[in-house]
Amino acid sequence: MKNPPWEFIKNGSVTSPQGFLASGLHVGIKRSKKKYDASLIFSKVPCVAAATFTTNRVKAWPLLYSMKVVDHDQHHAILASSGNANCVNGKEGKQAVISAVEELACHLGIATNQVLIAQTGLIGVPFPITRYKRGIPKLIRRLHENGGRAAAKGILTTDLAVKEEAIALRIGGERVCVGAIAKGAGMVHPNMATMLCFITTDVTISKPLLKRALRHAVDDTFNKMAIDNDQSTNDCVFVLANGQANAPAIHKIDKDYRLFRDVLEEICKRMAYKMVHDGEGVTHVCTLKVTGAKNPTEAEKVARQIANSMLFKTMLAGADPNWGRIVAAIGASGVSFDLKQTQISCDGVNIVNHGRVRALNLPKARKVLQRKSYEMHINIGKGRGKTEFVTSDLTTKYVTINSCYS
Amino acid sequence: MKNPPWEFIKNGSVTSPQGFLASGLHVGIKRSKKKYDASLIFSKVPCVAAATFTTNRVKAWPLLYSMKVVDHDQHHAILASSGNANCVNGKEGKQAVISAVEELACHLGIATNQVLIAQTGLIGVPFPITRYKRGIPKLIRRLHENGGRAAAKGILTTDLAVKEEAIALRIGGERVCVGAIAKGAGMVHPNMATMLCFITTDVTISKPLLKRALRHAVDDTFNKMAIDNDQSTNDCVFVLANGQANAPAIHKIDKDYRLFRDVLEEICKRMAYKMVHDGEGVTHVCTLKVTGAKNPTEAEKVARQIANSMLFKTMLAGADPNWGRIVAAIGASGVSFDLKQTQISCDGVNIVNHGRVRALNLPKARKVLQRKSYEMHINIGKGRGKTEFVTSDLTTKYVTINSCYS
Repeated sequence: MKNPPWEFIKNGSVTSPQGFLASGLHVGIKRSKKKYDASLIFSKVPCVAAATFTTNRVKAWPLLYSMKVVDHDQHHAILASSGNANCVNGKEGKQAVISAVEELACHLGIATNQVLIAQTGLIGVPFPITRYKRGIPKLIRRLHENGGRAAAKGILTTDLAVKEEAIALRIGGERVCVGAIAKGAGMVHPNMATMLCFITTDVTISKPLLKRALRHAVDDTFNKMAIDNDQSTNDCVFVLANGQANAPAIHKIDKDYRLFRDVLEEICKRMAYKMVHDGEGVTHVCTLKVTGAKNPTEAEKVARQIANSMLFKTMLAGADPNWGRIVAAIGASGVSFDLKQTQISCDGVNIVNHGRVRALNLPKARKVLQRKSYEMHINIGKGRGKTEFVTSDLTTKYVTINSCYS
Repeated sequence: MKNPPWEFIKNGSVTSPQGFLASGLHVGIKRSKKKYDASLIFSKVPCVAAATFTTNRVKAWPLLYSMKVVDHDQHHAILASSGNANCVNGKEGKQAVISAVEELACHLGIATNQVLIAQTGLIGVPFPITRYKRGIPKLIRRLHENGGRAAAKGILTTDLAVKEEAIALRIGGERVCVGAIAKGAGMVHPNMATMLCFITTDVTISKPLLKRALRHAVDDTFNKMAIDNDQSTNDCVFVLANGQANAPAIHKIDKDYRLFRDVLEEICKRMAYKMVHDGEGVTHVCTLKVTGAKNPTEAEKVARQIANSMLFKTMLAGADPNWGRIVAAIGASGVSFDLKQTQISCDGVNIVNHGRVRALNLPKARKVLQRKSYEMHINIGKGRGKTEFVTSDLTTKYVTINSCYS
């Protein structure tokens, strides 16, 4: 196998691409002073931006603002905070967004529609705008070319681990870079449940192509992971491209575009994996590979049904290869499949062959399911449609965390 | 309020209607000798039968058999067992059903197509047909007019409580009766997840009307409850009507039919409630009343989304009135709703009024959510569509039970 034409950068983050600064700190949204709750990403030169937003009908105020301004030509900054979702809290919430964006734009000397904003946390609580506004000048003062990690910390809620990454690649012989930070944890589900992901890059690319590449990357990554079956009101993925690398511009669908798109997908995939891995109470991550469906849509239906089945997810928690539940979930998906051709294996250990259990392999499979992460391959014997999903187990810890959140 | 023209019978069961005998005992499917694992319901005179079956594409062998014979004119018996689902276990499973039914029919002197059969338990395990067949003559010998409770015990798996009930009503001035036993617990979800319900009645009714009444009753009860989001391969509801009461026959859609239909619905509702109440690890039962939707379909979508939201269900476990999650779930349903007109209350305690939280009422609501069962009323302010759903909390106990089932 050839090495891919790109590589992960050690300690990479949103500040790895040239021309991006970032910061993060505690402004007082969260009670504990040790916890960061505000972040800023800034590029001195204007960027091309693209974004995807939650499909939940209820959308938080910051999202409504960002949806409105994202089609503008130029953007300079992403402003974010955690601890309060600023959602379903009346018109004051809308006002809070406007006044935070105005404060930032005024200090940075940019236009308000050049700012994208995202917030995450508890729904339905008044947003502490005074404290937040007071923090904004500090966020600006702390902007730094090594500020990626601080920014990554400022968007976390119940996450246990900071999520950041960067990839270097070559376009026209020149080194370019794509960096990302993310927030995941609870409610992570296809169709973008509570998750934020901010991506920066120093490539030069047209806005339509950036949008296209992002849509592609999100569909195959963030929209194919499952921790629970809920959708958040606050999810979004933002990408800023500032063209500060010395590489030729990407302005048509050619090999440079495809390489950039693949790298964007790769970094989203890594972020999605980290989110599932760090999901509330998650102890096992399962990459579900469904093949043999009539078409990709049917493959996705099967994967989604299994990935979200509470019985499947509890079975993973117990490292119990109860393959009957997998078959029942396939059946529940409503997709046509051929039981007699169905194959199921876990990291290469075959537990169902031609629709029948291989009982002798179950103890081996049990050992695989005890690993922190593994692949489960399910062939439903009907055709060539396939898909890949990342899912997690459902543990007592998930329930404990979510029983008393507010 | 007028009393309904029917009443629950104390200690009522499937043997409450005239002419029905039942039995239950341990034949050796389950390991523990203390646990019943086989049941029989029998009517000496032939019955009219109706049934509904799981929509899962994978169906257990007993269901495939019952689906084939249920359209036959006359039925005499329901044979059931627990501990083994007899599903996805190869052709031997099919043979096991045939040979069990033949054994029963031979001893009872009835035709094999006059027997309905249902089984529940672990999927993918060879069915212990020798032991089961040996138990069948014993089941017949033990048939008794007080055997309802034994039969109710013989179908339980992880259920904690026996589920049985009977209702007496008058048709044409004559007393008639409807009795039921059921098995629920895990995987209980709309579209009939693991649940068995057997209903008997001594009314005289035509087969088409019995089918119609059953479909109506199931749609509004068993298909509107949620413990988890899975569908079983073995679910079914059977009803036998033997005409042994001295009441006029129901042969058209008139007030007698409607009364019978309502009673059938009532007994199904009671069984559904008992199933949710006794669901795996359930500590709180919530009756979700959604009103104000554009139409009943949209009301059902909203109710289903909330009832199956893991975040909602964990919130019930913690008795935490985190109304933001309810609003997020309404939004995730994709149904159009008016946040400014949205009202949410728990047993009369209003927590959201015109889309805004009534913070002063939250402590009171917390007390309501500590009750074992309560109603939650959600008005989404758009129209007159409404529905009712029964759901439960998601507890650490559910996870523990299901982590190590096989």
